[in-house]
Amino acid sequence: MEIAVIGAGAMGSAIAGRLVENGARVVTYLEGRSASTIQRAKAAGMEPVGLDAVAASRLILSIVPPAEAVAVAEQIAVELRRTGRRTTFMDCNAISPRTMAEVAAIFGSDCGVVLDGSIVGGPPKPGQKGPKLYVSGDEANDSGVLVEHGLQVRRIEGSIGAASALKMCYAGINKGVTGLGTAMLLAAIHSGADEALKRELQESVPDLYAKLVHGIPDMYPKAYRWVAEMEEISDFLGKDDPAALIFRGMAGLYRKMAKDREDGGLLADQLDELNSGA
Amino acid sequence: MEIAVIGAGAMGSAIAGRLVENGARVVTYLEGRSASTIQRAKAAGMEPVGLDAVAASRLILSIVPPAEAVAVAEQIAVELRRTGRRTTFMDCNAISPRTMAEVAAIFGSDCGVVLDGSIVGGPPKPGQKGPKLYVSGDEANDSGVLVEHGLQVRRIEGSIGAASALKMCYAGINKGVTGLGTAMLLAAIHSGADEALKRELQESVPDLYAKLVHGIPDMYPKAYRWVAEMEEISDFLGKDDPAALIFRGMAGLYRKMAKDREDGGLLADQLDELNSGA
Repeated sequence: MEIAVIGAGAMGSAIAGRLVENGARVVTYLEGRSASTIQRAKAAGMEPVGLDAVAASRLILSIVPPAEAVAVAEQIAVELRRTGRRTTFMDCNAISPRTMAEVAAIFGSDCGVVLDGSIVGGPPKPGQKGPKLYVSGDEANDSGVLVEHGLQVRRIEGSIGAASALKMCYAGINKGVTGLGTAMLLAAIHSGADEALKRELQESVPDLYAKLVHGIPDMYPKAYRWVAEMEEISDFLGKDDPAALIFRGMAGLYRKMAKDREDGGLLADQLDELNSGA
Repeated sequence: MEIAVIGAGAMGSAIAGRLVENGARVVTYLEGRSASTIQRAKAAGMEPVGLDAVAASRLILSIVPPAEAVAVAEQIAVELRRTGRRTTFMDCNAISPRTMAEVAAIFGSDCGVVLDGSIVGGPPKPGQKGPKLYVSGDEANDSGVLVEHGLQVRRIEGSIGAASALKMCYAGINKGVTGLGTAMLLAAIHSGADEALKRELQESVPDLYAKLVHGIPDMYPKAYRWVAEMEEISDFLGKDDPAALIFRGMAGLYRKMAKDREDGGLLADQLDELNSGA
């Protein structure tokens, strides 16, 4: 059984690794990718192949940063039309239902079946159940093969867009909380209220503060990717919802944190220093 | 000992009640206030007096919605200048350090001493320690009289603005989390992802979901007041901070929830129905 996973980032390679461990053959397309990505893909047991072999897979998973989701769908659709093949394409990315509809439109019925997937939780780790892959629009249970090969799949009611909506809502809360904590701890540091704030958070909302202490450093290397995800959430909420503005602000905040990381991580150091020993 | 408390809302009246229980005489100014406010003030043991008697108090606390903080300071300063009195004025409101500086500027040194206060936690309840009153700029320990009369006061380092900054940061996290939950649960309800989202939150972030289930209904009657507080936080962060936009969005969200309450609470009912039994 051959499954293609497009995207050999932290999540894509770990998902592929879990499938390989459970007996699947997993191919991927690495043309133009960095040496470290190629290395990570090989370490996970992914086989680099040409686009034609990707198009020949029974199931293709797209697991890429949200800003790349549409381009991946286009690339695969072009190849399917060129070769006259049909397959099942599951977009697993953190994109809005609207962007998911765009992906589905790129795939006409001539290309096969499109599934709406979304991943909640971190990459699979040895000995852990790993993230949940939510799937909607999967009437024929095309995702069953993933369950057979060790993934935790939850099919949810609703057509294309339902799994994306779930992901938007969950990420809006979870990554939103990290963003609020990052923004306000930085503001406290810059206004000299940081030690008093830390003490108050520890006293009155200890669970929430513990979540921030864990979640904020975990975010630094992912901030660049979360920018587009926050923009997707803003798009999902739509212009008539005042909360859309919240996530435009979150996108700006994560852009700032991504830039901070490129620039040596001064802000990250300040946050880590405040939260150390907490 | 006479203390004036301006504002007989839920917080002002409960703070006054605590002071009265502990032997203080508390006066207030109720000209033009509603029957229910007058009733609440009297139930708390506050004595309605004229502005001249307020100005003659040894310590005046301003505990009003953030949008009214400057007007209250102006009203008191005018009266002090008219009567030639000096006193200590503590602004306890959820305002930005910049607005606090405006309040301090309204009081020249001819009016006496200005303290920066902020309240973290809900109104005092019988048998509970009640909220913390943070105070900065209190070099002469003018807040000591509040401690003697049963309030929990925490003096923090820093001058005028430090207590306000702490409040902005704490409220930004705490009320921000409630706002994120409100926005995304509503979005999930409107896109049919609500039951799947609820289950995922219960499974993966149970503490956070429990906080939302408690905090969201608690917010409905306060939403109108939180609008200005979110605008103060946005102002506090300043134009150069992308996170300022987050709180402009939060202000819009709470404006929507305040309007929903006026209109009969349809959105509140939807949220309560989803979270019931959670």
